[in-house]
Amino acid sequence: MSLLPAQTGNHFQAFSSFDGWSYDRPRLHEWQLKWLNLQLQEILPGNAFYREKLGTDSLQLDSLADLSAVPITTKVELVESAEASPDGLSRHHTYPATDYSRMHRTSGTTGRPLMLLDSAQDWSWWSGTWQHVLRAAEVTAADRVFLAFSFGPFVGFWSAHQACVDLGATVIPGGGLTSLARLEFLKSSSASVVCCTPSYALHLAEVAASEGISLTELGIRRIIVAGEAGGSVPAVRQRIEAAWGAKVVDHSGATEIGPWGFGWPDRIGLHVTETSFIAELLPIEGSEDDTLKQLVLTSIGRFGAPVIRYATGDAVRANLPSDGPCQFLWLPDGVVGRVDNMVTIRGVNVFPSSIDAIVRQVPEVDEYRVRVFRREHLDELEIYAEADDLICGKVQKLLAVQLGLRINVAHSPAGSLPRSEGKARRWHDERKS
Amino acid sequence: MSLLPAQTGNHFQAFSSFDGWSYDRPRLHEWQLKWLNLQLQEILPGNAFYREKLGTDSLQLDSLADLSAVPITTKVELVESAEASPDGLSRHHTYPATDYSRMHRTSGTTGRPLMLLDSAQDWSWWSGTWQHVLRAAEVTAADRVFLAFSFGPFVGFWSAHQACVDLGATVIPGGGLTSLARLEFLKSSSASVVCCTPSYALHLAEVAASEGISLTELGIRRIIVAGEAGGSVPAVRQRIEAAWGAKVVDHSGATEIGPWGFGWPDRIGLHVTETSFIAELLPIEGSEDDTLKQLVLTSIGRFGAPVIRYATGDAVRANLPSDGPCQFLWLPDGVVGRVDNMVTIRGVNVFPSSIDAIVRQVPEVDEYRVRVFRREHLDELEIYAEADDLICGKVQKLLAVQLGLRINVAHSPAGSLPRSEGKARRWHDERKS
Repeated sequence: MSLLPAQTGNHFQAFSSFDGWSYDRPRLHEWQLKWLNLQLQEILPGNAFYREKLGTDSLQLDSLADLSAVPITTKVELVESAEASPDGLSRHHTYPATDYSRMHRTSGTTGRPLMLLDSAQDWSWWSGTWQHVLRAAEVTAADRVFLAFSFGPFVGFWSAHQACVDLGATVIPGGGLTSLARLEFLKSSSASVVCCTPSYALHLAEVAASEGISLTELGIRRIIVAGEAGGSVPAVRQRIEAAWGAKVVDHSGATEIGPWGFGWPDRIGLHVTETSFIAELLPIEGSEDDTLKQLVLTSIGRFGAPVIRYATGDAVRANLPSDGPCQFLWLPDGVVGRVDNMVTIRGVNVFPSSIDAIVRQVPEVDEYRVRVFRREHLDELEIYAEADDLICGKVQKLLAVQLGLRINVAHSPAGSLPRSEGKARRWHDERKS
Repeated sequence: MSLLPAQTGNHFQAFSSFDGWSYDRPRLHEWQLKWLNLQLQEILPGNAFYREKLGTDSLQLDSLADLSAVPITTKVELVESAEASPDGLSRHHTYPATDYSRMHRTSGTTGRPLMLLDSAQDWSWWSGTWQHVLRAAEVTAADRVFLAFSFGPFVGFWSAHQACVDLGATVIPGGGLTSLARLEFLKSSSASVVCCTPSYALHLAEVAASEGISLTELGIRRIIVAGEAGGSVPAVRQRIEAAWGAKVVDHSGATEIGPWGFGWPDRIGLHVTETSFIAELLPIEGSEDDTLKQLVLTSIGRFGAPVIRYATGDAVRANLPSDGPCQFLWLPDGVVGRVDNMVTIRGVNVFPSSIDAIVRQVPEVDEYRVRVFRREHLDELEIYAEADDLICGKVQKLLAVQLGLRINVAHSPAGSLPRSEGKARRWHDERKS
């Protein structure tokens, strides 16, 4: 199947290399160009989607700057390609379907679910790329990593699981359990690291408190979060860290892209794993804040289902070069929000994470919900918080001070709002329905 | 860590070898003795549990017959060993805890949950042993295998998943979904093989029928079942096969033991994977049927957590030599029942599977429940069936004819009894509570 077995070898080894952290930009760009050209050489003959998009079955770039001549890829294109295929698979899969060993599916948060296949080599790329998250989180072979999630069709926890196994840590799959059963298993299994969404880390803390279980005595050192922006939102992060007595490490990825970013303990934000991805930052239409960009990524190494100039939909602020322990592109606010979810209220760009950052400064609010609606042709927000009127007033004041916006905060009874072990669904945009 | 790296090599290769299927008994015993002695040599220095139980840190057997001098191991011993350990792990783990990469947990059906660790080499043994199930089921690299289960702490589906990946088939993890969502994903993913419990295969058929989805049009070729006796119960098997238009293949295993048995399409019963296990058949106390034995297994190849002469709790009938396509020990009725669940009603041994075999002959019964109780010092059964009085009467007559017992069958409203995606809990033994 692969045309390049000798040149590409085992992708785990190539993409888990931490040398790249110290590369200067020219050296990093050399690495990226080498792998991009290897990938183009490997994929174009078999990849109908990119062969047609690029208009050629053989392309080699002289420099990374030439990449800007290649058209952007959107999720809509992949979904439409899948819908037009008799087998339901997007045509950006390079090899025949029987050459793959794993099938996963996107959550369909922004469109219809998309099925993605990975070959054994692609899977070694996933695991190799994930090693950067584990290294940054200071997870070692001596750790026991508890994955507080029901392993379903989403790739995130499967790839985390594989990466931990390949590191030599002990993985503890905590799926198919109630939150209380998870807490008990966490305790009995002597876990030292937990992987979950930020919302679920807070929800487990709520359950622990109500059951009289002391989370800080469990001996958890690190909580690796993903799926939502919380890991790079200071107030959310502090709240999780206080509840667990553990350091939070953010991580970002997507089924159709790969595990593209990792955070650090004691440091907010995400690094793009630039040895596995080429990052570009494009303007966001309708944004009045020109420091805010859309992250566009090209994967290098996932030959079976590559994305080239893929519009992630993630709004970020970039800071380059990083002043941190790693020279990769640093996004000091992590993922600020989804471009799709951005709302412009009286000239101010608001994302779910901006609201989260403020609401979470008030520890008395257990859960909340945001309603986005239109009033006389203008976008508006309203918040329902599980807190008394006094606390609701406090949140409202914080919003006014920190966003410069008057947003109504209404009381909701304790326990009345839904909790989730996956991505929280706090943002209800009535304009779209 | 391993003392025998050169000798043992990669366990996947050794234990996935299908040559063993055609071995005559002397040759098979030679293989078993070789691996048993390698295992004893490897484990005894580090395995406190077996070192103490066997009273030595170096033991080599001259023949398999000598194994009968070794004491039986029970689950209670492993649970007690775990309870007495500061880290909650049974002392039958050979290596230091940091040498392992996976932690799983038993369901606790027969006692408290037990945590089990597997090293990378143990895991390759699991996958190698599982290949026999896949080979018998005629699963190939071209298949897409849908795992209809939320991947939690139980090892079964994790090992199935790994085995499919190692075979080169495409695995589709179907956890964390409702039954309807699973059916839709099954359809869109073009799966050809499904793994689940027999109960859940029937439950999915119920949901499909109520939603107007035609299971037989999905193109599923094989359903690999485990977790309950159903796969070797003719009436259950026929019912699943008719609903899905697919052949059922039984499989048996346990977290603390390994994946020890596999069935065939078009053939009832289980083969013991004798290249990975040494099987013995011991009398069952209290049984009035002396063809019924308890299966006792010694794993060979799972050095990190071996079981030696382990009382599985499974009641079986043996037929040796097999007249089938494989020379391994054949259990023509599969697992007849759990020794613990055997009830003697007026001199007749009754297992949950005996009842299941009869109730499932009446397709109008959607779900049922069995109550075991004591009346004037004698054990009694009563059945609640989701069916009208006429059908209940029909089931009652079948029980009288086929078991020779009068068992009351009472009506229960449609949909009133619980369904489960895991092991069904139809057997309620009030004598134990």
